[in-house]
Amino acid sequence: MQPDHTNVSRSRRWFLRLGAAWSAALVACRSKSAEPPPEPRALGSPVSGYGARSPFEKTARFFNQNTKVPLEEASSRTPLHDSYGIITPSSLHFERHHSGVPQIDPATHTLTIHGMVDRPLVFTVDELRRLPSISRIHFVECSGNSSSEWRSAGDPDIQRIHGLTSCSEWTGVPVALLLRECGVQLKATWVLAEGADACKLSRSIPMAKMMNDAFIAYAQNGEPMRPEQGYPMRLFLPGWEGNTNVKWLRRLKAMDHAAMARDETSKYTDLLANGTARQFTFDMEPKSLITRPSGGDALPGAGTYELTGLAWSGRGAIAKVDVTVDGGTTWLPATLQTPVLPRAHTRFHFSWKWDGGETRIASRCTDETGYTQPPVADLIAVRGLNSNYHNNSIQVWKIAADGQITNGNRA
Amino acid sequence: MQPDHTNVSRSRRWFLRLGAAWSAALVACRSKSAEPPPEPRALGSPVSGYGARSPFEKTARFFNQNTKVPLEEASSRTPLHDSYGIITPSSLHFERHHSGVPQIDPATHTLTIHGMVDRPLVFTVDELRRLPSISRIHFVECSGNSSSEWRSAGDPDIQRIHGLTSCSEWTGVPVALLLRECGVQLKATWVLAEGADACKLSRSIPMAKMMNDAFIAYAQNGEPMRPEQGYPMRLFLPGWEGNTNVKWLRRLKAMDHAAMARDETSKYTDLLANGTARQFTFDMEPKSLITRPSGGDALPGAGTYELTGLAWSGRGAIAKVDVTVDGGTTWLPATLQTPVLPRAHTRFHFSWKWDGGETRIASRCTDETGYTQPPVADLIAVRGLNSNYHNNSIQVWKIAADGQITNGNRA
Repeated sequence: MQPDHTNVSRSRRWFLRLGAAWSAALVACRSKSAEPPPEPRALGSPVSGYGARSPFEKTARFFNQNTKVPLEEASSRTPLHDSYGIITPSSLHFERHHSGVPQIDPATHTLTIHGMVDRPLVFTVDELRRLPSISRIHFVECSGNSSSEWRSAGDPDIQRIHGLTSCSEWTGVPVALLLRECGVQLKATWVLAEGADACKLSRSIPMAKMMNDAFIAYAQNGEPMRPEQGYPMRLFLPGWEGNTNVKWLRRLKAMDHAAMARDETSKYTDLLANGTARQFTFDMEPKSLITRPSGGDALPGAGTYELTGLAWSGRGAIAKVDVTVDGGTTWLPATLQTPVLPRAHTRFHFSWKWDGGETRIASRCTDETGYTQPPVADLIAVRGLNSNYHNNSIQVWKIAADGQITNGNRA
Repeated sequence: MQPDHTNVSRSRRWFLRLGAAWSAALVACRSKSAEPPPEPRALGSPVSGYGARSPFEKTARFFNQNTKVPLEEASSRTPLHDSYGIITPSSLHFERHHSGVPQIDPATHTLTIHGMVDRPLVFTVDELRRLPSISRIHFVECSGNSSSEWRSAGDPDIQRIHGLTSCSEWTGVPVALLLRECGVQLKATWVLAEGADACKLSRSIPMAKMMNDAFIAYAQNGEPMRPEQGYPMRLFLPGWEGNTNVKWLRRLKAMDHAAMARDETSKYTDLLANGTARQFTFDMEPKSLITRPSGGDALPGAGTYELTGLAWSGRGAIAKVDVTVDGGTTWLPATLQTPVLPRAHTRFHFSWKWDGGETRIASRCTDETGYTQPPVADLIAVRGLNSNYHNNSIQVWKIAADGQITNGNRA
């Protein structure tokens, strides 16, 4: 299906004028005839082997087609404004590729574990799938997500600003099980993970993470993972920046030092104001967003609105989300949708009575470690303005008196 | 994609010979060269708007094509043997239609709430989507699931026997909110729910369920629900038999009696041995299945195997799953994958050392109410042999000495 990329802002209006209570939302619903519409007559479509979405649904991942960056070395972004619950459909999971999506035959692909191990191993996909497995609902977020907001209010809508995060149920084999079977040596402190894409994306991962909660994922949302997520297998590091979850994984090499690979030196380091850089900043810090309403939406007038959004933390579970509807003067707790899972998107809801005046709305989350999502000024005070990665600052949406919603991060 | 329905039994062999410990599973992995395969060179595919699964993956829903039942009035079954985690991909969620899948334009579809209410309401899809919503991970199971096993060991594999159950994250609006807004009258004790398919599938639902946890679902696994699940909206009744979760919902009518509609009289009642029938048997009772290995699989020889399966209960959360590997003499607890959610599929795992002799394996679950899944003989003792619905008895898989696995429910 050819996505409609010209239509990134909403074709659907999510909001209608609501009164002091929800009842007033229903005025329009009362004006219609209470007679049900005419009865259907026609027989529908038969059962099928593998279903597809309704042809009336057009929501797509966004990617910039007017750029010099080749689309094989690009990203596509999840439509967070049009998201429901906590699971991202696999077809709408964000993408970030460094040399495109390889088409890999699972009958020939292998994973080699070698280096500082007593017994190197080479797994076929089938062999890996036979081993004891775990399933986890976790987000993946690109560390470059939200980067437009470091120096200005950069992009107009949540999909373009923040769409490099998605959440799935992942299934795979614990790396610790595999490394123990290989007889990993005590002096091995790092593991180099290498992908089977043309650029052989490579990252060095500390052994502690590998032995703690890392797994080799081969399934996503109940079926074999999608090609653009690393089919037939990827490294999965719960809560760590997206690129370390190496896709199309072909090799794990146990080492006594970090490899200082291209993808952890020329990229994915955080340049500070004094010219030095932080390296190996793996954890994705707590972040939250009001997804609806958000930039590009329009409120039809004063009344009660249901706000909803997502929060997540690479350090654990979300403990609370607060919402401001008066530009930060007061913050009130949002309702968290259960289950609240560690290192997973968490859905929140907040009921808001808008008086029709210009204001700013925002959410901020706190995770179970006590870390609270900062305002952007606090982030800049520590990290300066050279950074491109790890922007987890509060997203402000500006509500104009006419109901138009825009990016309120600076203006 | 044209599914391969001739290939319902496994094209992929899930099991290889394992020794006394997992280590022995890895013999084959050690015999390969530790040198990684040649480096990839080619640039892959670009980013895209809406992704698809790998062309190497062919798993499909099963449906019987050699039958007089028209495929518009048929069912298709989830490949449980090829399932991962607890989420069923929307494309593989089972189907059961009484007059096919209507193609409904969400711009013209409406939901009418009328009958014994002070203020009838008619909602468009957009209006419904603006109201406060909830998201829940729940199974849906057809009450006719597993019916082949009442009188014999009927079907050879888990997809054909038990594939009328699936699990998704559903999002929608609580029915209680809508009924309260309509001013539902105190004397209204039932609500008739009617679908917009050609047969206008209709069920009477007790008011208590409607006010407790029922919701009008419009999203499934993070996007608008699939056409075959009721797009643009269905009634969702957590834990209740599938057909009561009326799809393509067009009408809710508050009444002071059950409508005794065709779909709750000529169908979906449970005929007992004495010729009387139970009606309105809504709850789906606790059930569990070993999904891997299962009928149609073959074990290559004695050794250690990872068993996995699914358990669920319409009455609440699964409390425990026990597994027997000696035909029922002894039962040992399986490990439950967290999170264990009420009225949701729950994944379990069990490590089994097979000595190579003929045996029978099975699982049985107990839910948080204390209800334990019965052997089929216990079910027949109470319900007789006239029943077609609500068979939640223990599924036995027979392991032959040559490793072949067959349906062991009777033979």
